[in-house]
Amino acid sequence: MELALKELEEKGRAAKAASKKLAFLSTEIKNKALLNVAEALIDKQSEILAANRIDYEEAKASGMSEAMLDRLMLSPSRLEAISQDVETVAALPDPVGEIFEMRTLPNGLQIGKKRVPLGVIGAIYESRPNVTIDISSLCLKSGNAVILRGGKEAINSNSALAKVAQQACLNAGVPEGAIQFIESTERALVNHMLQMKGVIDLIIPRGGPELIKLISENAAMPVITGGVGVCHTYVDKSADLGKAVAIAYNAKVQRPTVCNALDCLLVHSQVAQTYLPSIAQEWAKAGVEMHCDEQALDILKPVSSLKLVPAVDGDWGKEFLSLTAAIKMVDSLDEALEHIEKYGSGHSEAIVTEDYSTAMRFLNEVDAACVYANASTRFTDGGQFGLGAEIGISTQKFHARGPMGLKELTSYKWIIYGSGQVRP
Amino acid sequence: MELALKELEEKGRAAKAASKKLAFLSTEIKNKALLNVAEALIDKQSEILAANRIDYEEAKASGMSEAMLDRLMLSPSRLEAISQDVETVAALPDPVGEIFEMRTLPNGLQIGKKRVPLGVIGAIYESRPNVTIDISSLCLKSGNAVILRGGKEAINSNSALAKVAQQACLNAGVPEGAIQFIESTERALVNHMLQMKGVIDLIIPRGGPELIKLISENAAMPVITGGVGVCHTYVDKSADLGKAVAIAYNAKVQRPTVCNALDCLLVHSQVAQTYLPSIAQEWAKAGVEMHCDEQALDILKPVSSLKLVPAVDGDWGKEFLSLTAAIKMVDSLDEALEHIEKYGSGHSEAIVTEDYSTAMRFLNEVDAACVYANASTRFTDGGQFGLGAEIGISTQKFHARGPMGLKELTSYKWIIYGSGQVRP
Repeated sequence: MELALKELEEKGRAAKAASKKLAFLSTEIKNKALLNVAEALIDKQSEILAANRIDYEEAKASGMSEAMLDRLMLSPSRLEAISQDVETVAALPDPVGEIFEMRTLPNGLQIGKKRVPLGVIGAIYESRPNVTIDISSLCLKSGNAVILRGGKEAINSNSALAKVAQQACLNAGVPEGAIQFIESTERALVNHMLQMKGVIDLIIPRGGPELIKLISENAAMPVITGGVGVCHTYVDKSADLGKAVAIAYNAKVQRPTVCNALDCLLVHSQVAQTYLPSIAQEWAKAGVEMHCDEQALDILKPVSSLKLVPAVDGDWGKEFLSLTAAIKMVDSLDEALEHIEKYGSGHSEAIVTEDYSTAMRFLNEVDAACVYANASTRFTDGGQFGLGAEIGISTQKFHARGPMGLKELTSYKWIIYGSGQVRP
Repeated sequence: MELALKELEEKGRAAKAASKKLAFLSTEIKNKALLNVAEALIDKQSEILAANRIDYEEAKASGMSEAMLDRLMLSPSRLEAISQDVETVAALPDPVGEIFEMRTLPNGLQIGKKRVPLGVIGAIYESRPNVTIDISSLCLKSGNAVILRGGKEAINSNSALAKVAQQACLNAGVPEGAIQFIESTERALVNHMLQMKGVIDLIIPRGGPELIKLISENAAMPVITGGVGVCHTYVDKSADLGKAVAIAYNAKVQRPTVCNALDCLLVHSQVAQTYLPSIAQEWAKAGVEMHCDEQALDILKPVSSLKLVPAVDGDWGKEFLSLTAAIKMVDSLDEALEHIEKYGSGHSEAIVTEDYSTAMRFLNEVDAACVYANASTRFTDGGQFGLGAEIGISTQKFHARGPMGLKELTSYKWIIYGSGQVRP
């Protein structure tokens, strides 16, 4: 344990030292390094897959669920996809060095902001090994050093991936120490990491709600939290019901296991009689189980082949991450807004309506990272929003909110060009 | 104590409730409220000054220093100045509701960001009662509710000022609860406040380094720290020595008690023989005491009428906040950069040079909120930078860096106008 702590501290120092050089690394070298990583992931796939095999067999033997095993598993095609993601990051504009808000003050001082990296990012994540490469490439491109702490289940996979990335970066001229990987799986190391203020400038947790809670409550440095999405779609009395079926279907079914999927459908009572059976039948075909309030249940009971369950209190404000949706009838926009304020997680919320003022009120009044009129909440994503890559989705208001790209891994400094000015 | 805790929790709830209404309050009402406050500060000055008199006499009797007594004291002219500051805030553009980065995606979605308040700001400050009005007016203009916790020494002044502001705001139609003032001076309340995550969205500490340290180490929510400025001015071998004298003189003497004042002068050895006596004689006239390294001491010893002290280790990296400066000779730009990296606090750093590449390297490589070429560090100020008002100067990289205005008291949300789009 003491050895592991010492190793962690050393890696922290090395990352800090590297970060000072990374801040000035040319875009050319960073991109060359990223392309090297992309290539190495293919070239070294037999080593990576062998390491992954060890993790997979151990996890299987210990009784890991199929869903979790699937998250853990790498394959040639998955490595190919990870490699392509790295190429995508290489192709993005370099955020570092961007000058903005430059202007000349009346006294002749030229003043503006210059974008700079944050420094050292700590990433704490669970079983998906692709995060190792994902976070490393985004940190490298944004000029940050990174300290990676992956899950125990994927330790061999993560270690192999980190080694490949480290070597590929070194070959391109990236300063040593830019990517640090913690080999020890001691749990206490996480707590120690969270106290390394002054070394780690930002912690990014990637994993389930428990991990995120643990980290955001205990980290001494800033944390970008997010990922928990309790998303509502409200079908207004003035909705185009065709659009409302398509949007709610897409929001629930297109990828039910992610944070921007629909959890709760709110339907205005004036259109429920017509709308609910239509969406329910479509959802039923996709296997969606519906947890309905009493009024919705009354309407849907006569419809055949539906998986209906009476909603319980715990269904409101629940992130299902599966083919399950809560359904609630409301009598007004105000009731919908109140429900969302009470139960939403501040992630993504949508209204379907053809009424202009209703749409505007919803967009104004809902306090969430992403608020939609007449579109699926599934669009909440860095790629979909045109940010190129995504480091995560922030549900906090500080620093960044919603999908975060490379720019959100940076800060700025004020630069001032004078010619001898003094303050009067 | 229990009563005080209950009062704090109630004020927290009231502030949270008010913040939801404040977010949609019209610019007109906010400005009317600010002008009411400005007027009331003059109309009610006898009450305010009477309250201040109580604090002043008590502080004096308890042996408070002259400097601190001066900070605590209000007068008709000081109230006039505070009132004018509030008018200035009223005249600034409203940051809330600004739409930016709006664009149309290839799928027809119109997507952009809308500026929104942060929610509830907690302000913890020491003896200067003007902060009560200062922070309240900035929070109101930016649509945030505020919970004020002032110093014990100024409790009567702060309470009187808060009451005036609260009533003036209510008269203009600002929702009740927007400005909360904690009447109890129990120390434990601060610790409790720092744990009110979910109620208080951001803590702003205003006071000495100890207060700031206490708060940034213990707050569960984000804190905007700053205020500690260990500022260097480096006079390069290629400096215009006339500019270098004017800049170093201004940076040290114009207002020595503030964070952006010069603490340490670094002088290239090639110009030290000429430059040091010139600046030292100017500084001496203003009463500056100079803590010199050995080489600087050798040069300055023969000059008459200087207050010279051999520098000790503790002089490097020290924020003097007085007419004291450390002086160190360096043999290169690199040595200056290393010294600044080791001892600077990331606030404001300046170079004086006529060499283009040297200036560029300094601007690029120094890691501080504000980096100057050929100007005085005294310019680091929201007003001087054209931000209108200043809530503080951040020396952290997260969210905001350097002088912070109204915009830095806001977040944003993504708003998306669709026409039925679903994710493919």
